[in-house]
Amino acid sequence: MGTGESSVSRRAVLGAAGAGLVVGGVAGAAGGYGAGSADSSSDDQTVPFRGDHQAGITTAAQDRLHFAAFDVVTDSRDELVDMLKRWTVAAERMTRGEETVEDGALGLGDYAPPADTGEALGLSPAHLTLTIGFGPGLFGPSASDPGRPDRFGIGARKPAALADLPAFAAEKIEPSRSFGDICIQACADDPQVAVHAVRNLARIGVGVVSVRWSQLGFGRTSSTTRGQDTPRNMFGFKDGTANVRAEDTAVLDEQVWVAEKDNPPAAQWMTGGTYLVARRIRMDIEPWDRANLKEQETIVGRTKGEGAPIGKESEFDEPDFNITSYGAPMIARTAHVRLAHPDQNNGAQILRRGYNFTDGSDGFGHLDAGLFFIAFNRDSFKQFVPMQHQLSRKDAMTEYLIPNASANFAVPPGVQDGEWWGQHLFS
Amino acid sequence: MGTGESSVSRRAVLGAAGAGLVVGGVAGAAGGYGAGSADSSSDDQTVPFRGDHQAGITTAAQDRLHFAAFDVVTDSRDELVDMLKRWTVAAERMTRGEETVEDGALGLGDYAPPADTGEALGLSPAHLTLTIGFGPGLFGPSASDPGRPDRFGIGARKPAALADLPAFAAEKIEPSRSFGDICIQACADDPQVAVHAVRNLARIGVGVVSVRWSQLGFGRTSSTTRGQDTPRNMFGFKDGTANVRAEDTAVLDEQVWVAEKDNPPAAQWMTGGTYLVARRIRMDIEPWDRANLKEQETIVGRTKGEGAPIGKESEFDEPDFNITSYGAPMIARTAHVRLAHPDQNNGAQILRRGYNFTDGSDGFGHLDAGLFFIAFNRDSFKQFVPMQHQLSRKDAMTEYLIPNASANFAVPPGVQDGEWWGQHLFS
Repeated sequence: MGTGESSVSRRAVLGAAGAGLVVGGVAGAAGGYGAGSADSSSDDQTVPFRGDHQAGITTAAQDRLHFAAFDVVTDSRDELVDMLKRWTVAAERMTRGEETVEDGALGLGDYAPPADTGEALGLSPAHLTLTIGFGPGLFGPSASDPGRPDRFGIGARKPAALADLPAFAAEKIEPSRSFGDICIQACADDPQVAVHAVRNLARIGVGVVSVRWSQLGFGRTSSTTRGQDTPRNMFGFKDGTANVRAEDTAVLDEQVWVAEKDNPPAAQWMTGGTYLVARRIRMDIEPWDRANLKEQETIVGRTKGEGAPIGKESEFDEPDFNITSYGAPMIARTAHVRLAHPDQNNGAQILRRGYNFTDGSDGFGHLDAGLFFIAFNRDSFKQFVPMQHQLSRKDAMTEYLIPNASANFAVPPGVQDGEWWGQHLFS
Repeated sequence: MGTGESSVSRRAVLGAAGAGLVVGGVAGAAGGYGAGSADSSSDDQTVPFRGDHQAGITTAAQDRLHFAAFDVVTDSRDELVDMLKRWTVAAERMTRGEETVEDGALGLGDYAPPADTGEALGLSPAHLTLTIGFGPGLFGPSASDPGRPDRFGIGARKPAALADLPAFAAEKIEPSRSFGDICIQACADDPQVAVHAVRNLARIGVGVVSVRWSQLGFGRTSSTTRGQDTPRNMFGFKDGTANVRAEDTAVLDEQVWVAEKDNPPAAQWMTGGTYLVARRIRMDIEPWDRANLKEQETIVGRTKGEGAPIGKESEFDEPDFNITSYGAPMIARTAHVRLAHPDQNNGAQILRRGYNFTDGSDGFGHLDAGLFFIAFNRDSFKQFVPMQHQLSRKDAMTEYLIPNASANFAVPPGVQDGEWWGQHLFS
């Protein structure tokens, strides 16, 4: 896809609009600009919106996140479908660095509210990806809302793997920042671009959806493609060394993408999709910071500097869970790296895409900081859930973690030319 | 300043530590690295920590902010002074891209907690600046805490201009994110670097200070040096076009830097300093987004695209408040640009350094977004306060703004070689 003939970057729009304003003296006179004047430099920062899978899953992880979950506030299927169509147009445009509609911030006339809120004017696409997911409640009753009716007549199309996550040990889930009917994951290298995208989708959806919760993140914790350095989490450790990578297509087919055989005919709209698990994990960083280096490394199962598995030399060495020292395993039985490893989880893997967060202070003199964990997997109940049950009960790191938000969304496959988000679910 | 002989970038430390780890197999063996191995590429991203004025005031505005206000929880002057000395060492090191202490994340031994929390290992200095300020309560009674004793024996050294801001019309100040005894403004191009800095200062201060509130910001709203593009605020307008610039040294001397004559001998420690006003301004963006373009531009007094004053052509044209159209002033009497202009404020100007914020959802389906306003001025009560009284009563934009946090801090001058933060206040 990239930039087509209708593609004019926000930068180009702005320049042309500015020139228009000179003529008029006051704004509103803008409108005429060359459709061929796309800023070629922005092409480099554009991730294609359409394809077999949605962008933002195996895409090289951008540095900033704005994640939003919406409640659908209408009971009208037509209104919901209409919004999804308008969202698709706006989303595709924004990922190309354009306003939500052509000339949206300026050119609709003095006496119309601007269709685009404007704060991304002049900014590049910043590798923006927008990824949509549907929550269990959209289809009717769910664990978090058992009385919910099937408002949109899609209950029969709900895939078996789409349900609220179960309760895990040692978590304090806050419903006001958990669950949701629809999620949007906006990733970009510029937070203002990601925030602008979510805000404008929320605005387009007024009367149809309402923001239930949202979360900003920075300093990603996982590499999703080879060659990306492994970033560090708020514990100071490299996080995501053993992540599934975009290049591991066989692993992706096995562990991430939903296959035809996974669902009955009514839920085939999910084939090529995946499930997104979101968990807001507050880190108890002050006690962590009082733990000595040896204890920190024992808990993680890796060294802090290099990130090597304990007993090995380099970050990407395979951990050896059998080597011992003085009769005890060098990688502790309670080490995070051991308990999360595929060998300990019947081969299950997940594609992680987490971001660090710091949301001010908690009112007790501590920073409210941690990890906004995002993972994609083919079936959350066969991959994430068993792994998390094991971690929440045995992982020594649990002492320092307070998961306080939780969600599971069905992420449909990518949209092909001419399609809109959710088309195969609703038609 | 810059990088001296003791300067080893985090990147270099990490590489060397990694090599050390290879030898030991497990971490803790690190320590030996060449002191001359500083990463020269990081020099370009270093802002000098020492000088006549603190960095982070006229420094070209970095893209990300972590601002923190601390309560001092000790009554011991010695403990407070000791912490300020340790803060100064750590702050200077971090602005050079180093850990808080040499080898702090790795080299202190297996059985000591790491002195540095480690999440900035491998990251560049990212133009980090750390700017300290002292609140009224540090000196004894203040408007927000009238019963506070003068715990540190510095009440007589309090400058007359250091007091809590008065109440303004149409604000909803929340004490839990206002005021504070000490503030740290951390600005950097990488949020993880800014967050790491505040976190490590908080950690060094355990038992002496406690985080009262903190705020993250992105996408700065003001240019502080010529040549920086004017960014846009969450209303979609360029914000800070007419800001005071670092190059305007005469204006800075007149409007920003505290002069000797401003204070009696007991408060001369503030000469060369300035006052920092912080205001968290929630923007009511959903109603704003329903206002038509003409109304938005009338409220601001500038065009949305170019940012030109109404009736003029270019962003940097001087506004003309006298030109009329059909007998009415083209720039409305209630326009923000008119009411904030020096001509309407007895010539008073302020140096702005605001950042946009988005802090999740407000629980009512709206994004909690707005402007974290920071301004520096020579006397908040002669500059910011009269201007804000006028704006809060007359500015048409007030309808869309909910200021909910407020603070005023005395920012001492820069530290010279060998000095520590607050030295001239406490000795």
